[in-house]
Amino acid sequence: MENEINVLLYGLGAIGRRIAKAVLEKKGLRIVGAVDISKEIVGKDLGEILESNKRVGVTVTDDVDALLSKIKANIAIIATTSYLKDVCPQIEKCVKAGINVISTCEELSYPYYKYPQLSNEIDELAKKYGVTVLGTGINPGFLMDTLPIVLTGPCKEVESIKVTRMMDSSKRRISYQKKIGTGLSPEEFRKMIDEKKITGHVGLVESIAMIAEALGWKLDEIREFPPEPVIAEKEIVTSYTTVKPEFVAGLKSIAHGIKNGKAVIILEFISHAAVEEEYDAVSIEGTPKIYEKIAGGVHGDIGTVAMIINMIPKVLNAEPGLMTMKDLPLPSATPEDMRVYLQMKR
Amino acid sequence: MENEINVLLYGLGAIGRRIAKAVLEKKGLRIVGAVDISKEIVGKDLGEILESNKRVGVTVTDDVDALLSKIKANIAIIATTSYLKDVCPQIEKCVKAGINVISTCEELSYPYYKYPQLSNEIDELAKKYGVTVLGTGINPGFLMDTLPIVLTGPCKEVESIKVTRMMDSSKRRISYQKKIGTGLSPEEFRKMIDEKKITGHVGLVESIAMIAEALGWKLDEIREFPPEPVIAEKEIVTSYTTVKPEFVAGLKSIAHGIKNGKAVIILEFISHAAVEEEYDAVSIEGTPKIYEKIAGGVHGDIGTVAMIINMIPKVLNAEPGLMTMKDLPLPSATPEDMRVYLQMKR
Repeated sequence: MENEINVLLYGLGAIGRRIAKAVLEKKGLRIVGAVDISKEIVGKDLGEILESNKRVGVTVTDDVDALLSKIKANIAIIATTSYLKDVCPQIEKCVKAGINVISTCEELSYPYYKYPQLSNEIDELAKKYGVTVLGTGINPGFLMDTLPIVLTGPCKEVESIKVTRMMDSSKRRISYQKKIGTGLSPEEFRKMIDEKKITGHVGLVESIAMIAEALGWKLDEIREFPPEPVIAEKEIVTSYTTVKPEFVAGLKSIAHGIKNGKAVIILEFISHAAVEEEYDAVSIEGTPKIYEKIAGGVHGDIGTVAMIINMIPKVLNAEPGLMTMKDLPLPSATPEDMRVYLQMKR
Repeated sequence: MENEINVLLYGLGAIGRRIAKAVLEKKGLRIVGAVDISKEIVGKDLGEILESNKRVGVTVTDDVDALLSKIKANIAIIATTSYLKDVCPQIEKCVKAGINVISTCEELSYPYYKYPQLSNEIDELAKKYGVTVLGTGINPGFLMDTLPIVLTGPCKEVESIKVTRMMDSSKRRISYQKKIGTGLSPEEFRKMIDEKKITGHVGLVESIAMIAEALGWKLDEIREFPPEPVIAEKEIVTSYTTVKPEFVAGLKSIAHGIKNGKAVIILEFISHAAVEEEYDAVSIEGTPKIYEKIAGGVHGDIGTVAMIINMIPKVLNAEPGLMTMKDLPLPSATPEDMRVYLQMKR
């Protein structure tokens, strides 16, 4: 690194664009490349896509290989997909170009449970090229894993952990409201679940596996239940649609980490248009008991973008390999001027 | 390390004894030495001091040098004093014997602000002997530094942080109630403050300095106010004494981290016998705002002991040097059987 941290943006969907804006707002971060597959934006200046009036001077490309042969980046931010198998080739390209990676890919947040072999391969590749790879975001990455893990720090003994995320989906992006089935009939909802067009929250399994690993727990199994519709009792008007009574207001995703036949890690993700009080809560049964709550919850998109940006210095300073949030130093907000981190290792 | 982590206990006061009990409860931790200066306990078996019926087979000694020449320990737990200057020679002895150190010493939690030179000396010495030194506990170490730092992780921007610890002192040890001036007249309280017989909470300055460093903030100054008495409105009966109306129920310690003339980090430690609701709260003004609260608070003694035990594997696995909580991976509870950590570096 010279006088700025060089950033490659990989994926410019809704979250990728928010990340791009956040990167542009920080001093000390310079965007040296922008990749996306969407024909509508390839060839355009990044500023145009961000609907800002300012030209960024970086043209969106779909030719990663050509770009990687030209640029020198310190960190690639990959915001393309939730699934490890899809993001893996993208990670590989960056790693082989000697670029550290932070990704919003939910399954990358703790990939060792679902994909132990692939995780080890990524870890070895990263070590070979001397770079660090991390998956993070607000959830997975913070609310249902990092924060509950930290909250067990003052516990002499932990019997069980329950985490609840209660979100008012009517405040969220229209595409998000659609994704969780808002306004559908219960039959339509079930059909879309069966067809995997509604997936519920991706990351519960990863969060459970990360908590268990942090606590040194061997689980019998991780059980993820299919998302359940939350049915509207009365008409609800949202920015996306009007939900009629008896129709779907949103959904509830639940997963359990089972130890000795008992659900010891319970994650509840509840997101619908009739939520009265938003919050994020962690309840730890143990010695001592810890009942923690963030009133109003944490905004998902803002939180994810912040986590990605704020983990940049931790990743630049980490040992090479595939890391997870539990392996890195405490997350923390970064100052407006990130040049304070220029002394990092890579 | 062979088949157990060898622990040296240094300091067997109220907290030291609680730590000793916790160490004995964990599989995989073996006490190889116990040090204290109190003539009443030197020469006795540790089990006798802990008022357990079980002989531990470790005799308390006040001759550290002789002990260190005989034993081989992986970690020393120093629970002797709040002040760095007093604990420094003890740390030095352990480090020179090649033993990692975790201490309850409040000023060690973030010593770089008050004692930059001494901190660098400890850091260099630890590096020279290839061991890690950490100061931690519930507060400082967790509630007013680690936890607020972690909670800024999902923040794009932080304007200010306020942390409040509201404690019902009547539930605490008698020695603690005495220490905070419970039952004194306001005049007696002020006199004891002037004579430094009542010090208030030690650690506010360290917690502020750690938060500022984590956030990359340069503070104008850290301002610690003298502890203020909290006056009883009606008679309060505690396990220690009866507080008459207009007498001291406890105290309030406040410190500010000032940036650009504004208090941007505000720590409030409130502990008295008339507290109706115990809690630990963190309020972050920024984007997004985060209002977090642990209902009922976290028990100080249990939390400190747990933090000390739970940080053992992180310290054993860390790079050599003087570390603070912000430099180490996420704190987390440890399982009953700590032999899972035998693969650690040291």
